[in-house]
Amino acid sequence: MKNGQEYLDSIREMDFQIYIDGDKLNNALEHPSVRAAANAVAATYDFACAPEVRDRIVTTSHLTGETITRFQHVPQSVDDLVAKVSLTRYCNRRLGMCSFRCVQNAYAPVLYITHKIDADKGTSYHQNFTEWVKYMQKNDLLACPAITDPKGNRRIPAHKQPDPDMYLRVVDKNEKGIVLRGAKLHQTGAVFSHEKLVFPSTTHRRGAEDYAVVCAVPGNANGIIHISVRQPQDDRRKESVEIDLGNSKYGVHECIAIFDDVFVPWERVFMCGEVEYVDEVVGLLGASHRPTTSGCKAGWADVLVGATQLMAEYNGLDQVAHVRDKIADMIAITETMYSCGIAAAVRGFELPHAGYVSDPVLANNAKYYASKAVFDLIRLAEDITGGILSCCPSEKEMKNPEIAPYLERFLKGVDEVPAEHRIRIARLIENISWGLGSILHSATHGGGSGQACKMMLYELSKVEPHREMAVKSAKALAGIPV
Amino acid sequence: MKNGQEYLDSIREMDFQIYIDGDKLNNALEHPSVRAAANAVAATYDFACAPEVRDRIVTTSHLTGETITRFQHVPQSVDDLVAKVSLTRYCNRRLGMCSFRCVQNAYAPVLYITHKIDADKGTSYHQNFTEWVKYMQKNDLLACPAITDPKGNRRIPAHKQPDPDMYLRVVDKNEKGIVLRGAKLHQTGAVFSHEKLVFPSTTHRRGAEDYAVVCAVPGNANGIIHISVRQPQDDRRKESVEIDLGNSKYGVHECIAIFDDVFVPWERVFMCGEVEYVDEVVGLLGASHRPTTSGCKAGWADVLVGATQLMAEYNGLDQVAHVRDKIADMIAITETMYSCGIAAAVRGFELPHAGYVSDPVLANNAKYYASKAVFDLIRLAEDITGGILSCCPSEKEMKNPEIAPYLERFLKGVDEVPAEHRIRIARLIENISWGLGSILHSATHGGGSGQACKMMLYELSKVEPHREMAVKSAKALAGIPV
Amino acid sequence: MKNGQEYLDSIREMDFQIYIDGDKLNNALEHPSVRAAANAVAATYDFACAPEVRDRIVTTSHLTGETITRFQHVPQSVDDLVAKVSLTRYCNRRLGMCSFRCVQNAYAPVLYITHKIDADKGTSYHQNFTEWVKYMQKNDLLACPAITDPKGNRRIPAHKQPDPDMYLRVVDKNEKGIVLRGAKLHQTGAVFSHEKLVFPSTTHRRGAEDYAVVCAVPGNANGIIHISVRQPQDDRRKESVEIDLGNSKYGVHECIAIFDDVFVPWERVFMCGEVEYVDEVVGLLGASHRPTTSGCKAGWADVLVGATQLMAEYNGLDQVAHVRDKIADMIAITETMYSCGIAAAVRGFELPHAGYVSDPVLANNAKYYASKAVFDLIRLAEDITGGILSCCPSEKEMKNPEIAPYLERFLKGVDEVPAEHRIRIARLIENISWGLGSILHSATHGGGSGQACKMMLYELSKVEPHREMAVKSAKALAGIPV
Amino acid sequence: MKNGQEYLDSIREMDFQIYIDGDKLNNALEHPSVRAAANAVAATYDFACAPEVRDRIVTTSHLTGETITRFQHVPQSVDDLVAKVSLTRYCNRRLGMCSFRCVQNAYAPVLYITHKIDADKGTSYHQNFTEWVKYMQKNDLLACPAITDPKGNRRIPAHKQPDPDMYLRVVDKNEKGIVLRGAKLHQTGAVFSHEKLVFPSTTHRRGAEDYAVVCAVPGNANGIIHISVRQPQDDRRKESVEIDLGNSKYGVHECIAIFDDVFVPWERVFMCGEVEYVDEVVGLLGASHRPTTSGCKAGWADVLVGATQLMAEYNGLDQVAHVRDKIADMIAITETMYSCGIAAAVRGFELPHAGYVSDPVLANNAKYYASKAVFDLIRLAEDITGGILSCCPSEKEMKNPEIAPYLERFLKGVDEVPAEHRIRIARLIENISWGLGSILHSATHGGGSGQACKMMLYELSKVEPHREMAVKSAKALAGIPV
Repeated sequence: MKNGQEYLDSIREMDFQIYIDGDKLNNALEHPSVRAAANAVAATYDFACAPEVRDRIVTTSHLTGETITRFQHVPQSVDDLVAKVSLTRYCNRRLGMCSFRCVQNAYAPVLYITHKIDADKGTSYHQNFTEWVKYMQKNDLLACPAITDPKGNRRIPAHKQPDPDMYLRVVDKNEKGIVLRGAKLHQTGAVFSHEKLVFPSTTHRRGAEDYAVVCAVPGNANGIIHISVRQPQDDRRKESVEIDLGNSKYGVHECIAIFDDVFVPWERVFMCGEVEYVDEVVGLLGASHRPTTSGCKAGWADVLVGATQLMAEYNGLDQVAHVRDKIADMIAITETMYSCGIAAAVRGFELPHAGYVSDPVLANNAKYYASKAVFDLIRLAEDITGGILSCCPSEKEMKNPEIAPYLERFLKGVDEVPAEHRIRIARLIENISWGLGSILHSATHGGGSGQACKMMLYELSKVEPHREMAVKSAKALAGIPV
Repeated sequence: MKNGQEYLDSIREMDFQIYIDGDKLNNALEHPSVRAAANAVAATYDFACAPEVRDRIVTTSHLTGETITRFQHVPQSVDDLVAKVSLTRYCNRRLGMCSFRCVQNAYAPVLYITHKIDADKGTSYHQNFTEWVKYMQKNDLLACPAITDPKGNRRIPAHKQPDPDMYLRVVDKNEKGIVLRGAKLHQTGAVFSHEKLVFPSTTHRRGAEDYAVVCAVPGNANGIIHISVRQPQDDRRKESVEIDLGNSKYGVHECIAIFDDVFVPWERVFMCGEVEYVDEVVGLLGASHRPTTSGCKAGWADVLVGATQLMAEYNGLDQVAHVRDKIADMIAITETMYSCGIAAAVRGFELPHAGYVSDPVLANNAKYYASKAVFDLIRLAEDITGGILSCCPSEKEMKNPEIAPYLERFLKGVDEVPAEHRIRIARLIENISWGLGSILHSATHGGGSGQACKMMLYELSKVEPHREMAVKSAKALAGIPV
Repeated sequence: MKNGQEYLDSIREMDFQIYIDGDKLNNALEHPSVRAAANAVAATYDFACAPEVRDRIVTTSHLTGETITRFQHVPQSVDDLVAKVSLTRYCNRRLGMCSFRCVQNAYAPVLYITHKIDADKGTSYHQNFTEWVKYMQKNDLLACPAITDPKGNRRIPAHKQPDPDMYLRVVDKNEKGIVLRGAKLHQTGAVFSHEKLVFPSTTHRRGAEDYAVVCAVPGNANGIIHISVRQPQDDRRKESVEIDLGNSKYGVHECIAIFDDVFVPWERVFMCGEVEYVDEVVGLLGASHRPTTSGCKAGWADVLVGATQLMAEYNGLDQVAHVRDKIADMIAITETMYSCGIAAAVRGFELPHAGYVSDPVLANNAKYYASKAVFDLIRLAEDITGGILSCCPSEKEMKNPEIAPYLERFLKGVDEVPAEHRIRIARLIENISWGLGSILHSATHGGGSGQACKMMLYELSKVEPHREMAVKSAKALAGIPV
Repeated sequence: MKNGQEYLDSIREMDFQIYIDGDKLNNALEHPSVRAAANAVAATYDFACAPEVRDRIVTTSHLTGETITRFQHVPQSVDDLVAKVSLTRYCNRRLGMCSFRCVQNAYAPVLYITHKIDADKGTSYHQNFTEWVKYMQKNDLLACPAITDPKGNRRIPAHKQPDPDMYLRVVDKNEKGIVLRGAKLHQTGAVFSHEKLVFPSTTHRRGAEDYAVVCAVPGNANGIIHISVRQPQDDRRKESVEIDLGNSKYGVHECIAIFDDVFVPWERVFMCGEVEYVDEVVGLLGASHRPTTSGCKAGWADVLVGATQLMAEYNGLDQVAHVRDKIADMIAITETMYSCGIAAAVRGFELPHAGYVSDPVLANNAKYYASKAVFDLIRLAEDITGGILSCCPSEKEMKNPEIAPYLERFLKGVDEVPAEHRIRIARLIENISWGLGSILHSATHGGGSGQACKMMLYELSKVEPHREMAVKSAKALAGIPV
């Protein structure tokens, strides 16, 4: 297993290129925004080496029998599912943001669907994917899920779009492999991930075979062009400030990945054209991934709750009834997010030839809940923090000797805490609320939008035995012949 | 193990007396309100005998090695805790209301605290309680938790109230036993429960030793006077109507139990005066009980969701987008309630010499969530159901031949469903929403009010390691020396 | 102008017949449920005679120049619209429920549309309606809006329903008048209203001319059959209890009105077949009526807030922070409901040849807000009140000398307030929350469902100048050519 | 009256100095952040000159008889109050943000309180203030309310703080005037406002006389030091980008104003030491100002609604039911915010010797509602907009010819709308949601925090006649002797 430094070195070797700030940058890690995000990943690699947290993280591969982290593990039990939710919460509580280690949620669904396709069609996708997972485990690699397509007019299916590349597709095939064209958006961590796992963003119907593709591509493969996005306050990364960052250690980084005719050899292809299986595997990926988002948001929220509690103390208001009441509500939201993920994991089940996935209805419910609740979290945080949250002077002013003494006096809360600490916590709350590390966007659209989860929750519930039983029970209790 | 009929027979023998409808009634079971509630309990006894559900319910006593139901079981693992939440949901989904089988949630906390007191004080409470639990298991008995005190002025502690009996207390002790005086309110199921488990409703401080009492009393003990309460629409029980009941099979029944100097022999006393242990055992009882309320409310809500879905179909509106959206929200609330309970159970832990209890923070969170969410549930149910919900003619009108033909025509929705079915479902929704079997009251104050749970959630969170870690993490990320 | 007694006498003379409790009753006023509701109306008649409130209520008819109440007035200014909202709040604050005096909201819309139809078609509807309004004013009569049709399958238009009578329709016309067949549901106050104002419940399209009918019918016209509905706890009316009623003075009463070939002479017909005008007049009626619902619900809520405040005092909890916070939220909801109605009135405008109506978007918004907010109100009320709300003994038990002393002791809160007062307030809160006078149903579906208002709000907003301006402004600010 | 250019020229002449970006800047207007904000003010000056909007804005001074804008007007009627709410909504709908023109809300309260103090004490504050208002009107000047004190430990009164300057105070007085020391935070628009109106941020008690000061100071008076704050994304202002700004025309600007012994002559002092009047005038200022915040937030929200509607169209989703439903909810929130302000204005009353103020309870309710509702607004906006909201490439990438063609293709929604338009609208939504022009901060804490308004709402309600009447009515209806 790699440690953080080894991870960073391995990424540096890959020499990712990215368009950012109007230029093309060789070696993305040189950019402070990318580095801050890669440092968060490095921290997760280090966790696995730290004696006090190693037990949470390390397990044994059922494929190789070797010691691996849970970030590489195919869940072999409900306990594994639960452990992943809790581990994610732990990591994000340490990082105050996303930990970029979610790709493993795709392992069991893809192992399952590839086995099913192979059985039906005589393909060898399952073997391909198994080998790729072993490769990931042996080399302790990071992969970035490449899922979200541009989608164009959202009401038009992929194969009927005016521009056929609005969903990533296979434009050529030969004996050696396939060629991909299109783009994947919202690529969290793509320029510091060794691999990309390409996956459809939605179901596809007959006629859209070219869009039914699952495969793995090295992160720096030929033909891939990364274009950075501009996020709230990311300019601050480029200056020599620290306080203003809020999270002085870590940051997120998102980009767009253009696939300009990228070649993928067959041994890295796990689905190609079998459109009738897309629906199932997309649904299973959602079920598998979404409980992790509960742990993710809960850990993130833990830091927000902690910072808000500190701010209440710094303002001298931590014993005031309405403040305690609001912090209690923040805790309640956080634990509810977490509970929804844990329950989905506990109610998980085994996919044959693959591993365990969480209960699909509870998994979608978990994400739907979080997609709304985070707005209440930041409302409460802003309420308690006060106007300072949007009216902090910058670090440059804090350090300008002509005015620093004024700011040191007037930005204090309680006398015992220096103004700078109060500002630092205000900036951290800003960061998590709507700044560089905002919990909002990740919760709203990351890992499937709240609305998508709600619709899936509704559709999946229709066939749940306990829903059908409830309808029968309603009739029986009402005295209607069932 | 008893079946339903055997249970009813055993209650009938006890000849509970109750004041109801202005009179004193010998044999409470004769009253239709009581009978409808006792029938619900009988149904739960029958579940244990039904081959298709037996597996959910039956387990082995760790005390006697005999086969018992989970309603009598001291949880010996996290799986037992989870199974209890799910079993409660199952029962309530069958009943459309409370299943009256929660007393077992007190077993582990009382076993634990009695052992602790005995170790400190040389008492023999643990043995007493163990024997009582065995007695409950062997005879498959129902006990009613007798917890809620009248409380008088809520700002004044028990021992300083103008009326010293506003909290149940020990007014006499002798070699044989103790004498109880006071009252317990909100006694759900008291007049068809073999036993009462007396328990403090709140913590008590030094000086209030007389109020620190835990013991078991036969339900029909000398000196206990039951007074029925009057609940929404319970008058309908007394008529020969069925449709208007909504839930044509089962009902709830609540009463007040006056303790007019009730003698309890020492072997049935499990705490008496050890005021310094009350805080802990009250907290543990909350943690133990509240996840069950999640299963409880989720099962209850399942029937409401099913009925609302039927009503949407009967109105021809089940395919309309906003209706589906609202049903999805009802499902989401239901599954979130359930998830909170499951997570609390999964995060449970062992109490030495006792059994397992759920995680206290998550348990209180579960109840707090449900206490608010049920109002959204009934709002959505009423929204979808339409004005018919509050404007149904009675069964008597439905059956009056002079007007029945009009009602059969004009109260129809879609042509295929008879008006009577639509009315029956409207009545069931009325029943669950604010009628005879309202989910509101049970969720708001049953098993601890939402506010009490919120406060406990806040207090307990203060010392949780992950909250402390989050504060440290916030400081570290903000660059504040920890 | 009539006083309350004169009103009651005039209704008694009409000898309304109603099916109720399984029988046909001659003279509906004899029934305690009807009488309690008619007494509320009588109170509003008395208000007009009470010196201290007369100024709020009395105004001058623009048609006759005579002194009338605002319940009979065609609004001639924005101030009239505002006055009506406030008057309704005043009345309902006195009554603790609906005041049954809303028909006047239809005056301006019908005056307007009849003038428009007459101008287009040469009919004389406007004259007919003007005469009817004068008749109402001169005799100070009460009319019940007869609007809600049975609707059958809600997805099928009136004229395509399997049963053609699922919307009230004209089945015959001759020189003297028209014949109506069908039913109107949710008839609030029909059996103590002198008149019915028949009105379509929804828009109709070409082909449904028979359903486009507006007319006035005496409340006891031949062919009308009233069938009472059964509402929560209305059984209590039939007993000799007072405390258990909650609202010991007044009650609501709803029924179904069957129109079994009811003849209406032409001079009482205000629209008949002009289907192309239905859409506009239905929309205007909504705009005209819905701000009144804001005042209605605010006045109703005032009593709930007052009662909840009393209960907090009786429990000794009125100075506790979370209780004050929740009461503040109840007040905020109440004043927001009211504010929405006032604003709609203030932004009203003149309909030519008619009078003033409120702003349609703000009017629909007012009702939509209230339809959701009332559930929060009762949640907060139940939270503060405590378990006693659902666990009160009945008056019969309170008065049974064998047990009364226990109840007098144990149902007390603070020592200074007798238990009976606490019970009375608990019963009043029960009444307003989900009992006999529940605010829920009126707010959810009365005067148009929340969803209907939301849809109308959306549709009407599309063409509002300020919405169009906002889209242009968004483009201009974003730098997009407008 | 000035036009926009004349306003800007007059500010430039004042040569405001500000610390920003680590330096001291002479002539604040040179800084792009300040200029963008001053341009918004200039736009409001231009509105008064634009024929199509002049009527909304222009009125006649009751002090001088001259034509002035409503931004300078002391309301002389309820209609004036209503007009101000609507005017503010209009301006902010044009600007997409704050319009900086609120100081006039202080005129009536200060005129009133100064008259009262003078009558009691023989001072001449009223004359002083009247002259200053005339000066403001005649020269059409902008003043910045200087209200928020640093406050230190929020639980300690001003005069007991460890640092006596944590609330602005008078440190010296002589024949000519007074000397101020301390700071005012959250100074919106201070470096482009001709004047500052100094006002206490909270009530003060006996012993805190030095803190009871109301006066006017030129914006660039000796001893005032402005320190800019750093807000989300304000770095973008400093680059040559336009798209990334979101609002390409206008911006906000906040700063801290240090008062380092600022001299104020007596003729500009309106209160000094009369601590017993502070409570009333602070309450009146809240009542006077907070309805304006309703218009403010509604106009701001109008642009957000418009932009979200455009984004739904650009994504091809504007006809989808759940999107329409969410936009309807956004409209409903917007109109409810506005309605609350309008109602507060309509229920306003006259302050003797002064002018009109809005109803205090409804005014505080308006602000409290908005403080929560804006979070729902941005939740809905982000939900509809999609992931693009947080994953937009920057303008620099959009214009880099190597990658621009990819972005033009892949960031399109519907085929007819160029990607750049979609990005521009996404950036505008970002701007209003949590970016440079965020509605959140203004709604949460601007003009009084939601919690402060809620507490004031509660306290003021206690003595409202309709609340007292409601308590009596509750008792009467419940049958309790009143």
